[in-house]
Amino acid sequence: MTDRPLTPLLDTVESPADLRHLKPEQLRQLADELRAETISAVGTTGGHLGSGLGVVELTTAIHYVFDTPRDRLVWDVGHQCYPHKILTGRRDRIRTLRQGGGLSGFTKRSESDYDPFGAAHSSTSISAALGFAMANKLAGTPGKGIAVIGDGSMSAGMAYEAMNNAAQAGNRLVVILNDNDMSIAPPVGGLSAYLAKLVSSRPFLGLRDLAKRISRKFPEPIHKGLKKTDEFARGMAMGGTLFEELGFYYVGPIDGHNLDHLIPVLENVRDAAEGPCLIHVVTKKGHGYAPAEASADKYHGVQKFDVITGEQVKAPPGPPAYQNVFGETLAKIANDDPRIVAITAAMPSGTGVDKFAKAHPDRAFDVGIAEQHAVTFAAGLAAQGMRPFCAIYSTFLQRAYDQVVHDVAIQNLPVRFAIDRAGLVGADGATHAGSFDVTYLASLPNFVVMAAADEAELVHMTYTAALHDSGPIAFRYPRGGGVGIPLPEVPQRLEIGKGRIVREGSKVAILSLGTRLAEALKAADVLDAKGLSTTVADLRFAKPLDEELIRKLLATHEVCVTIEENAIGGLGAHVLTMASDAGLIDAGLKLRTMRLPDMFQDQNSPDKQYDEAGLNAPHIVETVLKALRWNDAGVDEAGVA
Amino acid sequence: MTDRPLTPLLDTVESPADLRHLKPEQLRQLADELRAETISAVGTTGGHLGSGLGVVELTTAIHYVFDTPRDRLVWDVGHQCYPHKILTGRRDRIRTLRQGGGLSGFTKRSESDYDPFGAAHSSTSISAALGFAMANKLAGTPGKGIAVIGDGSMSAGMAYEAMNNAAQAGNRLVVILNDNDMSIAPPVGGLSAYLAKLVSSRPFLGLRDLAKRISRKFPEPIHKGLKKTDEFARGMAMGGTLFEELGFYYVGPIDGHNLDHLIPVLENVRDAAEGPCLIHVVTKKGHGYAPAEASADKYHGVQKFDVITGEQVKAPPGPPAYQNVFGETLAKIANDDPRIVAITAAMPSGTGVDKFAKAHPDRAFDVGIAEQHAVTFAAGLAAQGMRPFCAIYSTFLQRAYDQVVHDVAIQNLPVRFAIDRAGLVGADGATHAGSFDVTYLASLPNFVVMAAADEAELVHMTYTAALHDSGPIAFRYPRGGGVGIPLPEVPQRLEIGKGRIVREGSKVAILSLGTRLAEALKAADVLDAKGLSTTVADLRFAKPLDEELIRKLLATHEVCVTIEENAIGGLGAHVLTMASDAGLIDAGLKLRTMRLPDMFQDQNSPDKQYDEAGLNAPHIVETVLKALRWNDAGVDEAGVA
Repeated sequence: MTDRPLTPLLDTVESPADLRHLKPEQLRQLADELRAETISAVGTTGGHLGSGLGVVELTTAIHYVFDTPRDRLVWDVGHQCYPHKILTGRRDRIRTLRQGGGLSGFTKRSESDYDPFGAAHSSTSISAALGFAMANKLAGTPGKGIAVIGDGSMSAGMAYEAMNNAAQAGNRLVVILNDNDMSIAPPVGGLSAYLAKLVSSRPFLGLRDLAKRISRKFPEPIHKGLKKTDEFARGMAMGGTLFEELGFYYVGPIDGHNLDHLIPVLENVRDAAEGPCLIHVVTKKGHGYAPAEASADKYHGVQKFDVITGEQVKAPPGPPAYQNVFGETLAKIANDDPRIVAITAAMPSGTGVDKFAKAHPDRAFDVGIAEQHAVTFAAGLAAQGMRPFCAIYSTFLQRAYDQVVHDVAIQNLPVRFAIDRAGLVGADGATHAGSFDVTYLASLPNFVVMAAADEAELVHMTYTAALHDSGPIAFRYPRGGGVGIPLPEVPQRLEIGKGRIVREGSKVAILSLGTRLAEALKAADVLDAKGLSTTVADLRFAKPLDEELIRKLLATHEVCVTIEENAIGGLGAHVLTMASDAGLIDAGLKLRTMRLPDMFQDQNSPDKQYDEAGLNAPHIVETVLKALRWNDAGVDEAGVA
Repeated sequence: MTDRPLTPLLDTVESPADLRHLKPEQLRQLADELRAETISAVGTTGGHLGSGLGVVELTTAIHYVFDTPRDRLVWDVGHQCYPHKILTGRRDRIRTLRQGGGLSGFTKRSESDYDPFGAAHSSTSISAALGFAMANKLAGTPGKGIAVIGDGSMSAGMAYEAMNNAAQAGNRLVVILNDNDMSIAPPVGGLSAYLAKLVSSRPFLGLRDLAKRISRKFPEPIHKGLKKTDEFARGMAMGGTLFEELGFYYVGPIDGHNLDHLIPVLENVRDAAEGPCLIHVVTKKGHGYAPAEASADKYHGVQKFDVITGEQVKAPPGPPAYQNVFGETLAKIANDDPRIVAITAAMPSGTGVDKFAKAHPDRAFDVGIAEQHAVTFAAGLAAQGMRPFCAIYSTFLQRAYDQVVHDVAIQNLPVRFAIDRAGLVGADGATHAGSFDVTYLASLPNFVVMAAADEAELVHMTYTAALHDSGPIAFRYPRGGGVGIPLPEVPQRLEIGKGRIVREGSKVAILSLGTRLAEALKAADVLDAKGLSTTVADLRFAKPLDEELIRKLLATHEVCVTIEENAIGGLGAHVLTMASDAGLIDAGLKLRTMRLPDMFQDQNSPDKQYDEAGLNAPHIVETVLKALRWNDAGVDEAGVA
C-alpha cells in the first residue's frame, strides 16, 4: 500500500468551480499536489503514467481558464486524463482506475459531464470538438470545443481532415497541440520533423512575444499600443506555419509546464480569438517524476509501482508474449527471404516489429499513427513483388478497413496481416477489444483468415502467411502471453483451409477458432466425465472453411458447437451459412455458435471478461447440455436418459 | 454513331515507347488528337469526361518523360485515366469503357502493366507510389513511384499520412498535384483555400523561374551558374510551402496544359531531384471541350453525348432517384426540427444533401473527401444534442469504419447514417459496390440497421431515423431510380425491429431485406403458379431482427429463403444465428440464405450483375425448388408429388 501524499490545497477542490476560486499564485502548489496524487494513484493501480504527468499544468490551466463542462474539453486518446479525472469529481474513485467496475483508463461519457466525448483510439478529438463547437454555434448557445491532441496523434489522417475543416467553427474551436515529441514510440514522419524544427527555431513565447504575435489577430492584446514590426508583418505575409496555412491562428511554442505563461495565453485565446486557434504547447512526458522522465517509453503504460524507487511490480515470468513470438519468428524467416518487410503504425514494441527491426532495420517501417497509409503502402510493396507484413492491432485495423477492401482484397494482393490484440483485452476495455476482425475480413472475397490457438500455431501461421503469394492473408492472435507450449524448432506450412482434430470423441464436437481452444479442451474433460465423448477441433481457418472436416463432424456428432472470440458474423455465421447452403440443416442439426455477446464490455480482468462473455469452459458445457437438453442428473428434460 | 476524329499522329502510337520517338514539337499535335479521341470515345460510351480532358497534356508529358511501366505511374481515383488507356495499348478497346466485359472506367491491374495499381476510391495514390518506390529501393532496382493526385483527393487524411512518410523514398517518389480546383463538387476546406492562395499569389513558373527555384536542390539546374538571390534564400528560410514543411521539394505552380513547361519540369525532376518532389500543376477540368469546360460538375460523369453539340442522351423520365427522395424528405422533416443537420463528404449532389442544403444552408456540411472526420464530427454534434445525418455511399463509409465503431457505436450516440449506393452499382464496378455494410454494421452492438425496399420506404426510414435518439441508426438504399410507387404524403415512423408481410402465402416464405423485394414478389408469382403458395415479407431491419415474425414464418412454412444485396455475414447470417441460438434448426429447417456471391463483380449493366450474383426472381425460384427438391414437372426428386 502506497502512502498517500499530503495534498492540502487539492483537498479543497471538488470540481473545477472550486479551482477557479484559487488565486493564480496558488496554482503552482495545486499542480504539484495534483502530480503527487496522480503518481500515488497509478502506483496503486498501474496504468498510463507519463502522459498524465506531462499535462498536469495544462489540465490545471484549462480548467482554470475555460468554463468546463460548458466549454467541451476533448482529450485525444484520453490516456492522459487521470489528472483531469482527479479535478473533475472523480478523485474518490481514482484508485479504481482500469479495474473491473472502476474508472475507465480513458475518458468516458457515462462517467462524468466533464467527459463530453470518450476516446482511446487516437486523433478523434479535433473532429469531435468541432462537432461541439458547431452544435453550439447553430443553437446560438455559448460554449467552445477544445481539443488537446499530442504530436503523435497529429500524424493520423483524420486529425488533418478535421483541421482542414476547422475554419467554419470560428473562435469556438481551440486546438491545443501537446507536443511532447514522444508518443508510445519515437516520433516519425515529416510532421514530427517539422514540429521539432518549429520548436528548436523559436524560443518559447514569453508574454512580450505573445503580445507581439497576437496583436494582429486579437482586438485587445495584453500590451496595448504595441505596433506591428516590419518583420512581423512580413512573417505573416510569407504564410507562417503549416497550421496557419490550413486556416488556424498559431500561437506558440509555449512551455507547457509554466503556468505563468499558460494561463495568460489561454485567457487571451478564450477572450479575444477571432478564428480557430492552435496553441502549440511543449511538454515533457513524465514531467516531475524522475523515473518516468528518464524513460518515457517504459512509463507510457506501467504496472503497479513503488512511488519512491519507481520500481514496477514485475509480472511473474511466463510464456513469451504473442507479439514477441510473431516478431522473432518473422525476423528468422526473413533471414532467408529478402522480400519480407514489416510495417507498424506507431506500435513497434506492441506488435513485436521492434524484434524484426533489430534484425532487419532496412525492412521495418514505422509509419506513425497512420493505419490507412500503412495498408496501402503495404499493397504497393506487394504489387512490386515484396512480401509485406502489416502488424496492426485488431481494433486499430478498423481504421484501414477501406484500404483492406479496396487496395488489398479487390486487387487480390498478397499483403499479410498480423492482427494482434484480437479478442478481449482486459484493462483497456471496449475501445481496445478486437471483436470484429473475423466478421469484417472473412466476408471479403479473396481473403484467407486464420486464428492462432497458441504460440506454436502463431509460428506456423506466420510462416504460412509468408509463403502465401496468391492473395491477402490474415492471422489473429490475442493480447498477452502464450499458453506455455514449446515453440516449434521449424515452422510448418499449414495447408490453406484445413483444420486439425485435437481430441477425438464421438458424441459432441467443439469447433474452435483461435484462443478458446484451451477452454474447449477443459470443457471436453467435463463432458467426457458425464459420458459425453467429445471431439475438439481447431479449425485454424475462418476462411476458407475446412468444409470437409466440418461436414464430417456435423454428420458424426450429435451436438456441434463453434466457439470464437469474435462478434456475430464470424466463424459461427460462416459454418451455419455453409450448412444451410448445403441443406445440412434440413433434416435437423444440433449446431450452436458461441461468440462475443452483443454488447461492448467494460474493462475487467480477462477471466471476468470471458465469464461475462460466456466463453469459458463451463459455458461450453452448458451450451452442449442445453442443446442435448440434459440436466445435471444426466437425464434430458424430456425424460429420456 | 459518332464520327471518329482524324488522328494521324496518334495512330502511330501503340505504346509509350512509340510516343518517346516523337520530337517535342510534335507533342502538341499528339495531345490534340488524344483529346479528340477521348471525347469521341466517351461520347459513345458515357463515363468520366472532364477529369480526363484536364490531364491530356499531363498524360502525354508523363509517358514522354518517364520510363513507364518501369516507373510506376499511379493515377489517384483513376477516373481521369482514359487518355492514359489510349496511350498504353488499349485504344482498340476504348469504346468498351464501363461496359460489361469491356475496359474498366478506372485503372486496373489486370488490364495492363501500365496500371500497376488499381484505384477508384480517392487518395490512395501516394501510399501506393511510395510502396513501389520503396520496393525498388530495397531491391536495388531502378524505377520511381509517380502519383498523380487531384486537389480534392488531397483533403483526405490518407494522402496526408502518406506525405508525412514520403521522405524515406528519396527521389524515387514523385507526386504530381493536379490542381483543377474542382473535384465533383466545389472544393472545401483549408487546404483548398491554401492552394488557391498559392496559385493566385504566384505567376506560373516559366523556365527562368523554374531554374531559379530548383537551383538550390538540383545539382544541375537548367541555367547553370544562376546564383541564388537574397529573396530566394530568405523564402526558403521562412519555411516555404506546406508541402515543403512536410519534407517535399515543391515545384510550381505550372500550367498543366503547356507542354513546353511541363516537359522540362518533369525532366528535371526525373534526372536531378534529391528527395521526394511535389509538382504543382494547374489544369482545367474539361479543357479543350467547350461544353465540358462550361460545366465541370455536369461533365464529371456523363451519359453518351453528341460530340458536336455536347448534348447528352437523356435517360428516359422515370421515378425519382433514391438520393433525391432522401434529400428532399430530410429537408422537409428539418423544417420543423432545428436539430437536424446533414453531412456529406464531397458528394452533395450524389447523396442528395444538396437538396437539404438548399433549404437549410446553415445546417448542411460538406467536409470534403474526409469520411473519417465526417463521422466523428457527426458524433460530436450528436453528443451536443443535434440530430446529424451522415449521408455517405456504402463503399465510402468503409473509410470511416473505425469511427463508426469507436466514436458512434461504443458511445451509443444517435448518429443517423444514410447509406446510398448500397448493393451493386453497375458501370462503376466492384470498387463502388456497397456489398458489406449490413455485415459490418449489424455486427456492432447498439446499432439499428434498416434497408429500404423502395422509395416510399426510404421516406419512412428517413423519418424514423430522425426520431431515433437512443443510439446509432443506419438505413441503406440503392443507386439509381426508385421503383415508381407513389411517395407517402406523410412519413410514417416505423416500429424499430418490426418487418411487414407484403403478401400472404402458406408453403414458401421469402424474407427480403431491401431492394430485392420486387424480385421476391415476381418469384412468388411463379411459385404460386406452381402451386407453392408463397409469403413475402419485407423485414426492413437487419438489426434488431423481427424475431417474432421470423419465428412465425419459419414455423409455418415448409421452405424459407432470406435475400439481401449484401455479402455473407448480413441478414442471412443473423437469421441463421438466431435460429440456431433458439434451437429452431435442431429438428430440421429448410432455410436458405441468398446474398452477394464470394467474388468482386466487374462492371456491367445492373441486371446482368444481379444475374451473375444470382439474385433475380428465377434464382429465388430455383433456390426454393431445390430446397423442396422439385423438378420442373412439379414432382420432387424423391418422387413425392
